[in-house]
Amino acid sequence: MMLVLVVSTCVFAAALRRDGASPEGTLTQISVINALMLGQYDGWHRIDALLESGNFGVGTLDHLDGELVVLDGHAYQVRGDGKVLPVPPEATTPFATVVKFDPGDAADGPPVTTLRALDEHLAKAIPARNHFAAIRIDGTFASIQVRSVRRQEPPYKPLEEVARSQSVWTYENVRGTLVGIRSPDWTAGLNVPGTHWHFLSDDRTQGGHVLDCRITKATVRTQVCNEWRIVLDDSREFDALDLKQDLRKELQEVESKRGK
Amino acid sequence: MMLVLVVSTCVFAAALRRDGASPEGTLTQISVINALMLGQYDGWHRIDALLESGNFGVGTLDHLDGELVVLDGHAYQVRGDGKVLPVPPEATTPFATVVKFDPGDAADGPPVTTLRALDEHLAKAIPARNHFAAIRIDGTFASIQVRSVRRQEPPYKPLEEVARSQSVWTYENVRGTLVGIRSPDWTAGLNVPGTHWHFLSDDRTQGGHVLDCRITKATVRTQVCNEWRIVLDDSREFDALDLKQDLRKELQEVESKRGK
Repeated sequence: MMLVLVVSTCVFAAALRRDGASPEGTLTQISVINALMLGQYDGWHRIDALLESGNFGVGTLDHLDGELVVLDGHAYQVRGDGKVLPVPPEATTPFATVVKFDPGDAADGPPVTTLRALDEHLAKAIPARNHFAAIRIDGTFASIQVRSVRRQEPPYKPLEEVARSQSVWTYENVRGTLVGIRSPDWTAGLNVPGTHWHFLSDDRTQGGHVLDCRITKATVRTQVCNEWRIVLDDSREFDALDLKQDLRKELQEVESKRGK
Repeated sequence: MMLVLVVSTCVFAAALRRDGASPEGTLTQISVINALMLGQYDGWHRIDALLESGNFGVGTLDHLDGELVVLDGHAYQVRGDGKVLPVPPEATTPFATVVKFDPGDAADGPPVTTLRALDEHLAKAIPARNHFAAIRIDGTFASIQVRSVRRQEPPYKPLEEVARSQSVWTYENVRGTLVGIRSPDWTAGLNVPGTHWHFLSDDRTQGGHVLDCRITKATVRTQVCNEWRIVLDDSREFDALDLKQDLRKELQEVESKRGK
């Protein structure tokens, strides 16, 4: 089966945007990925403020306390022990990316057997490679391998080091949603180039940062974003960081490592 | 005389920002600098829309037709022949950076004899190196060397090549304003790391992209921005660009070259 997607926004209707009208499709991110890579795990942006910027996205929480999944306007924490909890509005995040999700029509997803195959399908289906995309996949997963990380205490270790002690699980025959944020390759250092996938089960009891998956049956909804907003940490610690470092290899390890 | 600046925003009052309140101090840019470096000179974002995002900033115009200076809510074009003209609202830009300028108190500027000395003073006075800053300097300039570029026609040459045929002038004993946008070093490829200075004389008849200056007497006003917004071009041409190229050396040539 071929993957056919209906892409919602204006990338293929450029004429509509030439009038300078206020853009739709804003991706908002809190801080930059290199700050997280360097161990800036203290939360500083409140979750209720984050949910004003978007109802769909991914991130982490204060003290790197698990994976953050934002879905349908609700924020969920997938802790290092696998437990899924609602996130209170006063909780904070050191890094997150959200959009006000306004996708095109749902389309059938591909029955892929790996996450890489899914990403390859989507690269063809959503060719806007210099734009951001929010991708929602609802369906049944024959298997899905996820990870989460445990709450850290200062002095914080770099993310690459913390990720070595991540917990990895595999769920089988589970219904749920993949929450994906795709960033262009030129966002290295600022966000995660490629698609950053988090998962949440339909019953909101299972989830995590996705390492691999086999999709049995799914629908795909996509929104392409042409506006990018970065909110920067005001702290002195943030200003002291050398953020221009090339940490692409280390990030690749963190994003896709499956443990031993 | 030491340069003493009062920095307006919240970098040094981080406690005020921990509540997640809507950030102030947004720097908005149209497209990314690497797109301009690669010859994307067709304007697509209207000037009236740009002025809604900010009243202070720098950029260029459709067909790379000179330097754009945004000051006190008005947009000015400094053409390749040196003539300064108001920019009509329906004109468009392929690249610009603006802020809603809300500076701290004015402070005495330094009587510097080079642009480099000015930048060095400001690096100490505004140490928020991982944030953006908008810097306005009003004063008398013993001399100021500026450049502009002439309108290009497609097929466009890369900016580095076009800059080789720039026009360079020096004004002496002129009163006017430096419009500066300072970007962190980790914005390479997206904006211009360091401070990008444009000039406009008090009588709005002289201006350009600043290559050097000697300041006799000046006041400095500064705003530090902790929110960064990038509006991306919707065109297919934009999506076809390889924006992750490292063009820092070429940009350095373009920004500071003084001709032969």
